[in-house]
Formats: sequence, C-alpha cells, structure tokens
Amino acid sequence: MSARDDIRLDFDRGSRIGIAEAILCAGKTDDHLAEIFDQAAAREVAFLCTRMTEEQHAALPERHRDRVDYDLVSRTAFFGAPSPLPDTAPRVCVVSAGTSDARVAREAARTLRFYGEPVTAIADVGVAGLHRLLDRIDEIRRHQVVIAVAGMDAALPTVLGGLVACAIVGVPTSTGYGAARGGETALSAMLASCTSGLFVVNIDNGFGAACGALRLVHTVGRAP
Amino acid sequence: MSARDDIRLDFDRGSRIGIAEAILCAGKTDDHLAEIFDQAAAREVAFLCTRMTEEQHAALPERHRDRVDYDLVSRTAFFGAPSPLPDTAPRVCVVSAGTSDARVAREAARTLRFYGEPVTAIADVGVAGLHRLLDRIDEIRRHQVVIAVAGMDAALPTVLGGLVACAIVGVPTSTGYGAARGGETALSAMLASCTSGLFVVNIDNGFGAACGALRLVHTVGRAP
Amino acid sequence: MSARDDIRLDFDRGSRIGIAEAILCAGKTDDHLAEIFDQAAAREVAFLCTRMTEEQHAALPERHRDRVDYDLVSRTAFFGAPSPLPDTAPRVCVVSAGTSDARVAREAARTLRFYGEPVTAIADVGVAGLHRLLDRIDEIRRHQVVIAVAGMDAALPTVLGGLVACAIVGVPTSTGYGAARGGETALSAMLASCTSGLFVVNIDNGFGAACGALRLVHTVGRAP
Amino acid sequence: MSARDDIRLDFDRGSRIGIAEAILCAGKTDDHLAEIFDQAAAREVAFLCTRMTEEQHAALPERHRDRVDYDLVSRTAFFGAPSPLPDTAPRVCVVSAGTSDARVAREAARTLRFYGEPVTAIADVGVAGLHRLLDRIDEIRRHQVVIAVAGMDAALPTVLGGLVACAIVGVPTSTGYGAARGGETALSAMLASCTSGLFVVNIDNGFGAACGALRLVHTVGRAP
Amino acid sequence: MSARDDIRLDFDRGSRIGIAEAILCAGKTDDHLAEIFDQAAAREVAFLCTRMTEEQHAALPERHRDRVDYDLVSRTAFFGAPSPLPDTAPRVCVVSAGTSDARVAREAARTLRFYGEPVTAIADVGVAGLHRLLDRIDEIRRHQVVIAVAGMDAALPTVLGGLVACAIVGVPTSTGYGAARGGETALSAMLASCTSGLFVVNIDNGFGAACGALRLVHTVGRAP
Amino acid sequence: MSARDDIRLDFDRGSRIGIAEAILCAGKTDDHLAEIFDQAAAREVAFLCTRMTEEQHAALPERHRDRVDYDLVSRTAFFGAPSPLPDTAPRVCVVSAGTSDARVAREAARTLRFYGEPVTAIADVGVAGLHRLLDRIDEIRRHQVVIAVAGMDAALPTVLGGLVACAIVGVPTSTGYGAARGGETALSAMLASCTSGLFVVNIDNGFGAACGALRLVHTVGRAP
Amino acid sequence: MSARDDIRLDFDRGSRIGIAEAILCAGKTDDHLAEIFDQAAAREVAFLCTRMTEEQHAALPERHRDRVDYDLVSRTAFFGAPSPLPDTAPRVCVVSAGTSDARVAREAARTLRFYGEPVTAIADVGVAGLHRLLDRIDEIRRHQVVIAVAGMDAALPTVLGGLVACAIVGVPTSTGYGAARGGETALSAMLASCTSGLFVVNIDNGFGAACGALRLVHTVGRAP
Amino acid sequence: MSARDDIRLDFDRGSRIGIAEAILCAGKTDDHLAEIFDQAAAREVAFLCTRMTEEQHAALPERHRDRVDYDLVSRTAFFGAPSPLPDTAPRVCVVSAGTSDARVAREAARTLRFYGEPVTAIADVGVAGLHRLLDRIDEIRRHQVVIAVAGMDAALPTVLGGLVACAIVGVPTSTGYGAARGGETALSAMLASCTSGLFVVNIDNGFGAACGALRLVHTVGRAP
Repeated sequence: MSARDDIRLDFDRGSRIGIAEAILCAGKTDDHLAEIFDQAAAREVAFLCTRMTEEQHAALPERHRDRVDYDLVSRTAFFGAPSPLPDTAPRVCVVSAGTSDARVAREAARTLRFYGEPVTAIADVGVAGLHRLLDRIDEIRRHQVVIAVAGMDAALPTVLGGLVACAIVGVPTSTGYGAARGGETALSAMLASCTSGLFVVNIDNGFGAACGALRLVHTVGRAP
Repeated sequence: MSARDDIRLDFDRGSRIGIAEAILCAGKTDDHLAEIFDQAAAREVAFLCTRMTEEQHAALPERHRDRVDYDLVSRTAFFGAPSPLPDTAPRVCVVSAGTSDARVAREAARTLRFYGEPVTAIADVGVAGLHRLLDRIDEIRRHQVVIAVAGMDAALPTVLGGLVACAIVGVPTSTGYGAARGGETALSAMLASCTSGLFVVNIDNGFGAACGALRLVHTVGRAP
Repeated sequence: MSARDDIRLDFDRGSRIGIAEAILCAGKTDDHLAEIFDQAAAREVAFLCTRMTEEQHAALPERHRDRVDYDLVSRTAFFGAPSPLPDTAPRVCVVSAGTSDARVAREAARTLRFYGEPVTAIADVGVAGLHRLLDRIDEIRRHQVVIAVAGMDAALPTVLGGLVACAIVGVPTSTGYGAARGGETALSAMLASCTSGLFVVNIDNGFGAACGALRLVHTVGRAP
Repeated sequence: MSARDDIRLDFDRGSRIGIAEAILCAGKTDDHLAEIFDQAAAREVAFLCTRMTEEQHAALPERHRDRVDYDLVSRTAFFGAPSPLPDTAPRVCVVSAGTSDARVAREAARTLRFYGEPVTAIADVGVAGLHRLLDRIDEIRRHQVVIAVAGMDAALPTVLGGLVACAIVGVPTSTGYGAARGGETALSAMLASCTSGLFVVNIDNGFGAACGALRLVHTVGRAP
Repeated sequence: MSARDDIRLDFDRGSRIGIAEAILCAGKTDDHLAEIFDQAAAREVAFLCTRMTEEQHAALPERHRDRVDYDLVSRTAFFGAPSPLPDTAPRVCVVSAGTSDARVAREAARTLRFYGEPVTAIADVGVAGLHRLLDRIDEIRRHQVVIAVAGMDAALPTVLGGLVACAIVGVPTSTGYGAARGGETALSAMLASCTSGLFVVNIDNGFGAACGALRLVHTVGRAP
Repeated sequence: MSARDDIRLDFDRGSRIGIAEAILCAGKTDDHLAEIFDQAAAREVAFLCTRMTEEQHAALPERHRDRVDYDLVSRTAFFGAPSPLPDTAPRVCVVSAGTSDARVAREAARTLRFYGEPVTAIADVGVAGLHRLLDRIDEIRRHQVVIAVAGMDAALPTVLGGLVACAIVGVPTSTGYGAARGGETALSAMLASCTSGLFVVNIDNGFGAACGALRLVHTVGRAP
Repeated sequence: MSARDDIRLDFDRGSRIGIAEAILCAGKTDDHLAEIFDQAAAREVAFLCTRMTEEQHAALPERHRDRVDYDLVSRTAFFGAPSPLPDTAPRVCVVSAGTSDARVAREAARTLRFYGEPVTAIADVGVAGLHRLLDRIDEIRRHQVVIAVAGMDAALPTVLGGLVACAIVGVPTSTGYGAARGGETALSAMLASCTSGLFVVNIDNGFGAACGALRLVHTVGRAP
Repeated sequence: MSARDDIRLDFDRGSRIGIAEAILCAGKTDDHLAEIFDQAAAREVAFLCTRMTEEQHAALPERHRDRVDYDLVSRTAFFGAPSPLPDTAPRVCVVSAGTSDARVAREAARTLRFYGEPVTAIADVGVAGLHRLLDRIDEIRRHQVVIAVAGMDAALPTVLGGLVACAIVGVPTSTGYGAARGGETALSAMLASCTSGLFVVNIDNGFGAACGALRLVHTVGRAP
C-alpha cells in the first residue's frame, strides 16, 4: 500500500458546487501531501490548503514549496495563483472579537481571497468594549454577509444580529480556558443565541464560514 | 410584581433587522402570553408564536384564540394575517429526512409562510434510501437556499452539499434515541460535516433556519 | 425512623453569617416540610422557602398555610413577616434578559425583600435588542450590585460588565432548548465571559445571587 | 517486581475463539514489550502488534526487530510470518471515506492479512463526492462483509447500508476537529444511523473491526 | 400540509438490502401511523413496528388494530403475517444479563421472528453470577451469531467473547441509574471491551442487532 | 414468551458472597415482580427489594403484599422476616448531610437492618454548619465503618475523612439542581477528594454502600 | 495583514469600569505581544499581563523586557509601575487549599497588588486537615472579601461560607487528575455548594476573582 | 512570595487518621518539592511521594535524592525507611487485568508496602481470558480485601464480586483509547456494576485504594 492508494481527488467539485476542492492538511502524512501536490501540479490546477502546520510546510518537496503562498497565523497555503478579484465593493465582512481570534478570522479572509471574493476585515471589536463595535456598525451594515468570529462567551454575533439585517455567520473559536472548553461554550452560545436567524459553523472553521458565504453570494445573489 | 412587569416587546425589530418580533412560548406563563396578546392587539400588529403547546393554546383568552391560526404538528400560531405571498417561484426549499422530522420542517415552512416567503417542501428523502433523494435533486437545485432537516446521524445535508451549489442550512432534530442524544449527535455531525460551506442552527430550530433564510434572500438578494 | 429524625435546623446561622436559615423545598417530603414548619412555629422564627411547588404549598398543614405568603412564579414562600425595609435607595438591581427569566429574577428579588434589602427590578432588556438596555443603563449604574439574569447565550452580563463599574453577579437560567442544554450553556458563557470580574452562581439560583449580594452589602459596605 | 510479573500471555486464545492473541502496545513499557517478544520467540509463535509507535519499534531489542514487519501509517507490526492467504476472492472489503482515514483502514487490512484473510481496499470515497462511491458500488456488493471507515459526520456507512445487502461494520475515526470531538461524533452518528443493521466498533479500532469480520467469515460461513 | 405529505415509504428496501422496511413509531403522530397503515394495507404488505407505545397501539384505527399482533414488553407490533420459519436449528441466540433487559432482548427476538429467522433466547445469565452463564455455554456455542443484551457495566459480552468463537453483537441497555447514565456506560464499556471483535449497536436497539444478524446470516452464509 | 422466561434467581448468592440476592425493582414489570415473589414464596426465602415505587407496591398480588414491610421514603421492602439483630454495639454509622438525603440514608440503614447488622443513624450534619458535625464526631469515631451520604458539593466525607480513622464510604446523592447535575457533581467530588482512602459507590446507592459495609465487617472483621 | 490589524486596545476601560485593560497572553503570537507593548509604551501606560508563558516572556523585545516584573509561578507580568498601595489594613484575603493551588492564588494576589489593593495570603489550609483552617479563621473574618482557591472536591469555600459573614469568591483550580477533570469537578462543586451566597469564577481564574473583588471594594464600599 | 509560603505540612495526620501525610507531586514545582523534603528531613520523618515524574526525581537536590527509593513504573518514591513488615500472611491482594494496568497496581502495592502492610500481587488476569482468573480464585479468596485494577470495560471486579465474599475495591485505569475515554468508562462501569457492595476510587488512584484498605484493616480489624 502506498500514499497514492489513499488519495482520490475530487477535481470537478468546482463545477458541481461552485467551490473547487481544498485540502485539509490535518491528519495527512508528508507523503500524502507530496502526492496530492504532484497530482495537482500534473493537472495544473491551483488549490487551497488549510490547517497546514509549519512542519508540514517545511516538509513539502522543494519543487512545490516555491509555488506556495503560506500564512503562518492562519496556517493556510495557496498553491498556484488565486482567482482574480473583481473590481467591486466587498459583499462579505469578517468581524472578530479579540486578537486571539485572528488566526480564524484570517483563515476566513484568505479563503475568500483565494476564491476571488473581496472581503472587509474588522478586528478586536468584542462587546465587552461595546463602543468599539458601535463605531463600525454602519460600515458593517453595507455588506451582504457578516462572518462574526468570537470565542469564550461569543456574545458578538448576538449583539450584531440585533443591529443589522445582513446574513450573519457565527464562527466560534477555541480561545480561552476552563469553562471556554476549547470553543464548545462559544459554539453552544451561538447556537442558543436569542438573535433570530444566526447561522453557525464548526469551532475554528473560518474556511467553512467562507465557503458558506461563497455559496450565498454565488447562488442567492444570482439572477433568478 | 405582575406579568406586565416582565414584558417589554421589541416592536421595531422588523424595521431594524427585517424580521418582526416573534414569541417563543416555552417558559412563559399563561398570564405572560395573555399580556403579550393584549399588547399586540392594542397595537394591531400580527405576530408569530413558536413552541406553543396545546395547553397554552387552550388557555389563551377567548377574544384572542379566535384570531389565531394554530398548527399542532409544528406548534406554531399566527396571530393576525400573515404577510401576502408574492407571485414568484419559491426561492427556499425545505427538505426533510424522515416522517418524524415533520414537526421541525413544518415550523420552518410555516415561519417562511408567515413572513411572506413562498416555500417548497420535500419530505422523507433520507439517504438510507438514496434514490428518493436523487429523484428530486433537479427540483431542489432550482432553489437558492435549501433547509435540510434531519436527525439521528443527519447524513442528508452532507450528501446534498456535495450535489448542489445552493446555500444549505442544516437543522438537526431530536429524533431518535440512545446515541442520538436528543439531537446532539445530529448537531455535531452537521457541524463536522465534510461538505464545504454547510450552515447549522440549533436542534429542532426550524424557526431559526427560516429566519436565516429570510436574512439571506432579503439581504444577499437585494440590488447592490 | 420518622421525619423528625431527618431534620436538624440551623437556627443560629443568622448570627454566624448574617443570613438566617432558608429552606430548599426540593427533595423534601410533605412530612419533612410539616415538621420544619412546626419547629419554626414553636420557636416563633420567620423563614424563607425556595423551590416550593404548588403541590407542596397545597399540602402544608392548614395551620401553617394561612401564615404563608406564596408566589407561584418564583415558587418562593415567606413564613412569618419579612424583615422591614429601610427607607433608603436600593443598592441592588436585578436585571433580566427575557420574560422567561422572570421566575428566577423574582426569586432573587423576593429573597432580597425577605431579608430587608430594597431592590430595583428591570426586565426584558436582552442584548438582541440592545437599545432596551442602553435606555436604562444610567439607572443601573446608580446601584452597587447588579444581579444579571439571563439564559441561552447569556450575553447580557458581558455587555453590562463593560458598561458599568458595579459588582456584577450573573445568574444563568435554564431557558431555551437544544444547545441551551438546560442552562449549562448560559452558565459556561458567563464563566468564560471576556468581561473582567463577573461573578457567577448556579443555574436558576436567584436565591444564591441574592444571598451573595447580601453578604456584599452587609460586609463590604460596613464601616471598616 | 519486574516486567515479567506483569505479563501472562493467553497463548491458546486461537484455539478458543479462532483469533490468536495480539498485543496492544499502547500503555506498555519497552521492558514489557521486550519480555513479550522473548516469551513469544521462545515458543516460536507469530503474533500481531497494534498501536506500536515509532519509538517503541526503535526500542525493540535488535534480535527481535529484524524479524518484525512494521508499517508506520497503521502502526502495526507482524512478528514472524503471517498466515498464508487462500487462493479465493476476497470476502471482506475495507472502504474508507478520506485520506486521513488511511491509518485506520490499513490497520484493518493488515490485521486481516496477518490472520490469512484476503481483503479489497477502496479509499477516499466519502459521500460529499457521491459519484466516487457509486462508481465502485457493484464491486463492493460482491463481498460478504464491508468495513466502512469514516470520521467527522461518518455518513459513509449510512449511505452504503441503504445500497448493499452485505454485513456492514462501521469504524469511526478521530479525524477532524472541533465538533468532530476526536471521533465521538462519528461514533455516535454510526450508532444512531437510520440504516438498519449497521454494526459499530470503537473509534479508530480497525483491528477490532477486522477481528469481528474474522469471527463472521469463520463462524457464520462455516458448514452448518 | 397533511400527514400524507410527510410520508414516502421505501417499499423496495427488501429487494435492495434483504430486509423490508420497518416503522419506528417514536416521534410519529397518530395521523402519521394511520396513514402508514393505510398505505401498507392498500399494497397488501406486512411490516414490523418498533417502539409503539400502548397509547399509539390504542389509537390505531380499528380496521388495522385487529390485524396487529402487539407485544407490550418489547413494544413491537406485527402488521400482517410474519415470514414463515424454516425447519432448521436456530443460527442466532439472544442472551440477556438481567430481567430488566427483557424488553430489549424480546425486541431482538421478535424482529428475527418477523423476518423468518428462528432464535434461541437465554435470559438472566449476567456475570455477577457466573455459573448461570457457564451452565449454558455449550448451548450458546452451537449458534453462528450471539446477540448479547446487557446494561449497567455490561460485562456479559466481554466474558462471552473470550469463551466462544461465534460472531457477537452487544446491545447495551438503559437499565440502571446514576453512573449507568441511561445506557451510555454499557455502550462505552462494550465499545472499549478487551474482547477482540465484538460488534456494538445503539442503546436498547434490539431491532438493529437483529437486522445486523439477518445481514450476516443472509450474506455471509450464502453460497459464494 | 412469559415473565417466567425472563427470570433466573440466584438463590445461593448468600452462600457464595455472604449477602443473599436482593431485587432491584426498577425496570421490572408488575408481572416480573409477581413471578419473583411467587418463586421466593415457594422456596420460603426472605428477600429485600430496592427502588420499589408506590405503584409497584400497590400492584403486588394481595397474597404477597400482606407479608411485605414497605418504607415509602427509602422505597425498600422486606419480604419475610429480616435477619435477627445481634446484641452488640453498632459497627456501622450512617451519617447524612441534609434532610433531602434521607431517602438514601434510609436505604442504607434498612439494608443493614435486613441483613442483621445494627446501625447508628445521624442526620442533617452537613458541613455548611460545621458545629453540627463536630458535636457528634466522638460518637462517629466509635464505629468501624462510616457511610457518609451527601449531595451537591458533597464536602461531608472529605471533612470526616480528615477527622476519623474509620473506613469511610461516600454515597453521593442526586439532591440539588443545575450544576449538581443529578448527583454527578457529588460523585466526582467524592472521587477527587483530597482525603486519603475514601471509598465511593454509585449515586443514590445506599444499598450498595450497605452491602460493601457488610463485606467489610464480615470479612475483614473475621478471625484470621 | 499584519499584527497591527488584529489589535485595538481599550485604553479607557479604566475610566469606564474602574479596572484598566489587562492582556491575556494565551492565544497571542509573539508579534501580537510586541505590538501591544509598543502601543502601551508609546502612550506611557502601565498594564498587567496574565498567562504569559516563559517562552512568551523570553521572546519579548529587549527594550520592553527590562521594564517587566515577571513571576513564573503565576505567569503574570507587570509592565510599568503598579498602582501605589494605600496604608490601610487589607480588605481582601486570598485563602488556598493546597500547595498546587499556589499558581492561581498568586495570580489573584498579584492582580490585586497591581491595581493597588493590599492583600493577605493564607496557603495550604485545605479542609482534609480542618485544624489548619480553624487556626486562622479569626484572621480571615477581619476581611471584607475572601477569595477561596481550591481544586479537586473544592470543599474549602463551603466550609468557609458557613463560618464567616464575608463575601466569598470561589476559584476552582485544575489541580488533580481523573475525576477532578481539569477543574470541572471543583467548579461544579462550588456552584452546587450548600453554602448560601458563594460566588464563583472560571477555573484557574485568579485574575477574574481579583477583578471582581476590586469591583466590590470600589463600588460597594464607596460612599452612597 | 516564596515556595515556603505555599506549604504547611500536616505532620500529625498519622496520629489523627492512622495514615501519615503523603505528597502528591503533580502540580508542584521543583522548588516546592525541595522545600517539602527540607522540612521533612529537618523533622526526620519518612514519607511517600506519588506521581513523581522522572524529571521531578532528577531535579531533587542531591542531598535528598540519595535517600530516595524511586520506582519509575509506578512513579512512587519512598523518602526514608518504610515501616517494617509484620510476619503474617498478607491481608490485602492486588489483582490487575492487563499489563498496561501495572503502573497503577504497583502504586497500590508500593503504598501498602510503605505503610507496613504485606500484599499479594496477581497480574494480567482479565476476564476476556476467564480461565486465568479462575485458576487463582482460591488464592484470592484467602485475603480480606481485594484491590481490583482494570481499565477499558473493567469487567474484572464485577466477575470477582460474584465469586468471593471479600471486600472489593475497584481501581479504574486510564488504559485504552476512544470510548475508554481516559478511564471514565472503566470508572462508570465499576460504579454501575451489578455486583453488590463494590467500592470504587478515582481513575488510576492506586494510592487511594491502598489507603482505604489500610483504614479497613486498621479499623475494622481491630478488637472491638
């Protein structure tokens, strides 16, 4: 059994659901990743990697590593050129509560960037200092989708949801300790939020929130 | 202290976020509900009630009960006339996995109906009998948002997410027993789904999924 | 073995910690309660009962039931006269997020009332409709201790904690369903709150929050 | 007390239940493993090791390490020659959902191989790309037992169970993060599956699934 | 919306996977069940109902109730004639640990009976009185599949698995209190069992264990 | 299948482990209990029933109910005469923290009584009123085994364990609400106690604590 | 995106709630911390850091590290001069149960010190050796607020709460193993304590307890 | 603050409860341990250390390390001479299920040894190979207390409890993976065991089981 036997890439996912295959690096061996890069290079397709550790990045075969744009904070990598950005105002806004949420907020922003969707990023506006959020609320309102990244008690999307009419996607983060329980509390708080119509994704899943936002702007925004 | 002291309705939520206030009946006393109906009647506003038990419905003051359209399966009530439906094809499709998920699927459909959004409902197409879903997949694809209601292992939204490009909102249900854990398993499975860009709401929260869909079609669909 | 064998009341708790013994009715049989009322009547002491169900209230011996002031929403009972109220502005404010939190907010207010502490009650100011809270914030600031009662995602005390300098005690409630998990989510969210210096008590424990507030105003407020 | 005092191998398990003793290396010290290899070598019995880390493998006494066939991905080791393979079509098929499940799928395949049972392996056919599974479904159907290895939401065995009549054994894996909860979600989803007659084993327990399959083909398949 | 809209029976499941559709009554309204019985009666198909409460049984339309064979302990119902039994020795044995496990053991036995598979039932042989099990062990060994039903600490299948070579399916039950946690402990204990090759199904899922056994004897037992 | 098929009493348990079989009534049908009483009556053996609800007691066949000594608080029943009490000072002391723990403390005391072991009972000495415990500490010290019954935070056995040299068995109770989690918190607190050598049994398991104490005084106390 | 984009310090928190901003170092990169120190240095404000690891301390730019007072046990750092201490008797007492709780007790004490509040520290007085606590009880009573730090079963604040009238804040610690569950048991035990009016903060959150105590002495203690 | 401030040893615990103070090294810094050894050396008392890591052992001041008898498998250390062993047959037997349980079984045995109690150790007799246990059952029966150490499904003490009349103490271990949940499953299984009168201690707490056994043989065994 070799690494090749374990891999069957889904190259036409893009045509099926509008978002090309991306690679979750967690749980893959260096051999698996090398094989995936080889197959993609052979077909000349660009793709996005998420949760790539520094060690995994360093272990990439040199022939591939040169073509990779790697961001350490978000642990994302672009292989090949991302899609070009249109010359329009951003439809998606990524709002985050604290500095420790940056790694997730950036994963969302980088994912949107890779798939050619412009994005506005607003950081460190958690509701324990409410004025910081209220100062930016009009700017936030001008977007169609707000991705709200927050950990601990995750009160940010609840407050936002009562202030703006946009679609809101909550991304709980694993920030904090003790009763924060690695993000479980933030996740549950978002799911149980008293704000109507808040959507939620998995803990630390900036990638998933961005993909969902892409589904929204692609599909809901299309001409009927 | 009287029931009136405990209530402060948010009558301008509609103008703020595009969805008028709705009443979650769980946890409210009969006195609370009577007071709420009185205040709404005085202002001549229509509103939606969710999770209204048969007992709560029966205990409504007669002057209000006559104006209520109550559905026992979904435990929803319309007080006053719902918004008129536009004469367009539905943008939202509610898909459910099993007969036991009907109570939640109907809560979603009734919420959309109340706020004037047409809806297509497709029931009992769980993936353990995959052909039932595949038979309807082209019809589903014609919508902008799919609300996928499923309990137990909740595999339906994962399979759907790989087949259609629409925005997908998973609603886990409390169907099942033992390891289904009152819907916790379905909830976690949806959050951990390997399908990209799946949104999730609270267990049995058909209302929330519908409100989120309303945010989407209102905001994302609006002219830029 | 008789009911009398199971009971040993702590009549000098008041002199020891400043708060006289109160009776948690949950888990006690009707015989136990009758015996407790007999012992207290014999000593002519007044006391507070919490979590007394309607059935327990109805089963009290008639000789005692007449002397009881029972409140159904909070399930509290005063046996004998509560302490007199001083003629000063309230030092404690009980703020609650939604109508369903009334049963807990009232337990706190009634406990304070029984022990002779004036209280301000402000209901239904959850942060999903932020303006309702901001309208009252100056009034809240005038108190020394704020008891913040909230369920679901329990964002209220976090927002409050960033706006006022008072001591804040969060009381999570068992309001909500699914991921609200009977109050566990509200409890964890308060414990993990990003607001500095928020104190927390058990789920639905309005009594405990009030007792803690009494400790504060008695001890911290006393002359050095 | 020495390592020898802690060990009592069950050399006649093979004659009792048809599967010879195997060694779970997790939790054993290097001394324990050396002692076990000594005892087995003295009796000239071959055996299988599972969950042997690279460090444990490296720490084996050299006299034994040369006789070991070690596979790093599955962390399994054969000591001595495995049973010969019969010249028949495989009765057992190991199907896995993603590349990250390879370490568990290989543990199952290697276990079957060690005990002399031929196996077909089909990798990376998760249901988020349904066509990949449907392309292989006829091949899968020709087997008697299907071991379905999947993590995250683990929808693979549910879909399979509705498509084929074979015995199906689900092996949840610890792939994923956040709500995947180290495999707990995959485990619960399989247990709560709406497919009739799906069997489940412990998280990441490819060895156990293989042993169960051996029991099946040995016992159920035998002449009556 | 009517009950009919919520139902789409899978009448050809039998031809696909060898086990005809069965109805899980939990979560279905009386209207749903009446509609299902009507559809089945119109097609003249027999079917099995599980988890049918006494109330649901009593609420069946009289035209159907007469044709139903209902067993209160297992809460199963046969609608129409079960499949005929072959004249061979039972291949499946249902072993249960205590009297309180009878409701689950009977669900398994009745399911096998409905689908035409003979069964041996051995009750109350929990391992806290080991001799009761050892007395029957030779009889148990003569079967191909053993369904072991046990709650609490669920030690029965572990002990059995070390004594017999048959395929073993553990069914944890919700017997017990406190740390038994409604069957979660029995479930986890079976999954973590040190016996090799034990299969497990959901808590109280006698039906699922029986269906799995049917898959085994149908598929594994068939001529190659 | 009849009730008789589900039952196999272990009549010689007494000779094997020194404690005759007792019947846990939870989970048994009225038919099961009637059958058990019939078998015991036929053999003229006395036995103990635990967790017998009022409804189960009322449903006993009249021929047996007359011979039953039933205690509602502890839900225990003696069928036939308990063992005679020796004329010695009690070796076992049952100490409980609050009135709500009486149902469990009495189950322990009644179990000891049934099997002929004298017992001292000391109630309502929880450590929030420490003086109540210290007043009785010399009396407690005179026993060989102390069964300490406590719920909520269960601090009683920790404090006791630092004060006396006796064997101590903690019985957590399901008293309390919210974070008491039905006794789980008391259970965990006892297990994690910083007192050396505290033994623990299941939540509310007064019967088990008593049986363990019987093992101790029978076996440890016997002549070597 | 740079570290600067992720940070928006709340410099006027002090004027709003009486406690100046502090920095939770967990989850922040070295770049984030350097940027924060730069901004604070530019404004010439002193601040407190919590949960700063040795590695983070070592990675501080040298220009800042010289101005830092770092304590390894509590992992706190003072940047700039702490507030001056008033010449009054301490109002706050930090009591801890065991040596392993020192890291948390010191975090509380150092936080109080930084903000200019004198503190008494009393260590290793867990209730398994009750005399150690009773020896100090009169000294403890002279304070207004007691911060009680304890892990495992966390019985200390319960016993304290019954002995003194002061405000009591429990800080559960992650001391212990197994059923201590990283502090969850201590947390739950404190929340479920039978002592009236005990406040609780997050696991290991000495900082939060100190901030709450500051709110108390600032606000409750101020002239009316 | 120095290490000395964090420590207050309980030197007369031995006279109070019969077991001298022991030191749990987990959570203590090297400074703390050095200080403790200094204080003990100054008083010339011997003591036992548990959970001392190799790193902690290596970091002991040389003047103390020479006087320490350290065992790596159990991570226990004797400082000074253990109590002399009496010349009698062992009253306590430590039985363990698998080789991986050795580290806990030895902690129990070493603790008993340190306090002067002889012990019989029987290893690797798990019930999946039942004959290994039955071969030793008569030997086990000759003891007064049996400490049964087992992980995973922990069936050993249940089977033992039905075979012998001795007092039985179950020690769950953190052996295994997945559903073994770090020992939680073994712990719950022992607590929910259907064997009457089984006592349980914390996960991996061989020390606690031994201390409890000492309480038993000291107190119960003493002349009345």
